[in-house]
Amino acid sequence: MTAAAPNDTFLKALRREPTEHTPVWLMRQAGRYLPEYNATRARAGSFLALCKNPELACEVTLQPLARYPLDAAILFSDILTVPDAMGLGLYFAEGEGPKFERPVRDEAAVAQLTAPDPNESLRYVMDGVRTIRQALGGRVPLIGFSGSPFTLACYMVEGGGSDDFRRIKTMLYSRPDLLHRILEVNARAVASYLNAQIEAGAQAVMIFDSWGGVLADAAFQEFSLAYTRKVLDGLVRERDENGRKVAVPSIVFTKGGGLWLESIADSGCDGVGVDWTVNLARARARIGDRCAIQGNLDPMVLMAGPDQVRSEARKVLESFGPPTPGQAQIFNLGHGISQFTPPDNVLALVETVHQHSREIRRRSAGAA
Amino acid sequence: MTAAAPNDTFLKALRREPTEHTPVWLMRQAGRYLPEYNATRARAGSFLALCKNPELACEVTLQPLARYPLDAAILFSDILTVPDAMGLGLYFAEGEGPKFERPVRDEAAVAQLTAPDPNESLRYVMDGVRTIRQALGGRVPLIGFSGSPFTLACYMVEGGGSDDFRRIKTMLYSRPDLLHRILEVNARAVASYLNAQIEAGAQAVMIFDSWGGVLADAAFQEFSLAYTRKVLDGLVRERDENGRKVAVPSIVFTKGGGLWLESIADSGCDGVGVDWTVNLARARARIGDRCAIQGNLDPMVLMAGPDQVRSEARKVLESFGPPTPGQAQIFNLGHGISQFTPPDNVLALVETVHQHSREIRRRSAGAA
Repeated sequence: MTAAAPNDTFLKALRREPTEHTPVWLMRQAGRYLPEYNATRARAGSFLALCKNPELACEVTLQPLARYPLDAAILFSDILTVPDAMGLGLYFAEGEGPKFERPVRDEAAVAQLTAPDPNESLRYVMDGVRTIRQALGGRVPLIGFSGSPFTLACYMVEGGGSDDFRRIKTMLYSRPDLLHRILEVNARAVASYLNAQIEAGAQAVMIFDSWGGVLADAAFQEFSLAYTRKVLDGLVRERDENGRKVAVPSIVFTKGGGLWLESIADSGCDGVGVDWTVNLARARARIGDRCAIQGNLDPMVLMAGPDQVRSEARKVLESFGPPTPGQAQIFNLGHGISQFTPPDNVLALVETVHQHSREIRRRSAGAA
Repeated sequence: MTAAAPNDTFLKALRREPTEHTPVWLMRQAGRYLPEYNATRARAGSFLALCKNPELACEVTLQPLARYPLDAAILFSDILTVPDAMGLGLYFAEGEGPKFERPVRDEAAVAQLTAPDPNESLRYVMDGVRTIRQALGGRVPLIGFSGSPFTLACYMVEGGGSDDFRRIKTMLYSRPDLLHRILEVNARAVASYLNAQIEAGAQAVMIFDSWGGVLADAAFQEFSLAYTRKVLDGLVRERDENGRKVAVPSIVFTKGGGLWLESIADSGCDGVGVDWTVNLARARARIGDRCAIQGNLDPMVLMAGPDQVRSEARKVLESFGPPTPGQAQIFNLGHGISQFTPPDNVLALVETVHQHSREIRRRSAGAA
């Protein structure tokens, strides 16, 4: 099945080509704020079972698209599938977030790490990508993703979430050689994981550097961005689609990375994700036409009423301003959507982005 | 008692005057990493009882000065004494951080808020300041402090710490009038609280905007910095010291505020605190001679060995570079010291800052 008019607005914006409206999708758009997601998750038995079941992962990936005119789908999965495939034993303790049974904390554990073959131990992800592409039928593009090498290392060393990242930072400052070895393995693992997703049908890939922003300035460059760059260097940048080669763009999102936008934009990605602390006009001036900018509404805006949601969404669009040749915005939140979001507010958001971004283009064309 | 040679390096640097070495003090320098602190706290019975006992608060304030040649003392207290004095019922649940019995969440609770008279309900703090000044005998200056109006509001509305600041952000986006009213009261309360500390003997004051960095760009300006500025506008900027008027400088520290350094430097403070995500050379170029810069070693560096501590401390000093007329650094951590810090590492840090900053000055004088 192929849709009559596939919506490639998201991919066009990521290539900094003109679009009729600003494309919008939301990090964690398939998630707990949707009752239909909670129903599917209950059928799956657990979050991890849901991730590992291609049919059900496909079902929840498509749920937000049935409700809202979003411009992209994102694979439903977890950022920690890669270290799980390395044999660290991912599990979710009730109300506590992800944990690993066998964290990587000493020389012996580091020496044992190897990059998994994504078509073996992560085959369920590739099956999910193929199933979703089939089900999407070309309506909107599908984004694949992974955690960044550093963000994966945080969980691998800490053994779960952390307030102060004491274990990984102790390793970073006292045994940088061990951390570099973990990051080398992670960079190879993430590159081959994303390449397998591209091979299976992902039309863009996103690297979530959720914890790069906890690092000191110099440490971010050395321990996070350098390895994200290795991943980007290792990516297959085009795929075969019905006999023709199509480009596969990439997005890097470092939460709390607003101070480092120039170096992130120089890493080889096509889009830079920014959180809500970033002023979009200034970010645009700093990044220029090197990359598209993705972001950056505070997800907590969605806790207010629909009128405030519309007003704040317009402010985000006005802050970026009219797109110009080589400069484009992809509208998103500055972080994952909250489980407490009223679903109707998401409709108000998506509709406003489409309407108001057309209005900005009209105004700008009229002024020119 | 007056010391023969009082160390005013910290105050000089804050006035951007030349100093022989870079002054250093550490946020939360009187704290749980020191066994003598834990002993005093045990005698006090609880953290809050320790804060409210001027003699014991003086004792713990002086403990780190007995171990390390620090260039400043900071009043031992909590940032939440002000909302506690407003009657919100501050308490500390074991292992859970601060909480309020009566959080401020609706119109009625907001309407009831009033700024406390610091010389009544916060008299124990002023008694502490006087006791500490007496005990210090002029050896090093004493810093007074408060939470920023927005940071206090976070705890007042959330009722404690938060991962997503959902309650205060919901108020911010749906009932900004209520939040503005809270912030107005807080700004008046913080200004009179800091003025009372100055009157009692504080020789510099610091405003901790611990949570300003969780706000979106425009919201930070409107809901955090605007009220910090009101506090600064309301400060008594000199005090009577033995019959002569001496200036009382101020420092503003917004954790995660690296994107907003220019506007913070323009708020009317004398020093800007920065966390470890900030590149000091770039911060210096952005702030120029408007303010001194305080920071910014990652506290987790202190988890490594003394050699790494020395090496990373030197990097921080080199990153700022030699002080020049109108531009000065005050060495500090980028956040409070961790309770897991080995005390010997702090000695290595303080000694290295003194030695290496003299070395940088020698090198710079030789090159000139």
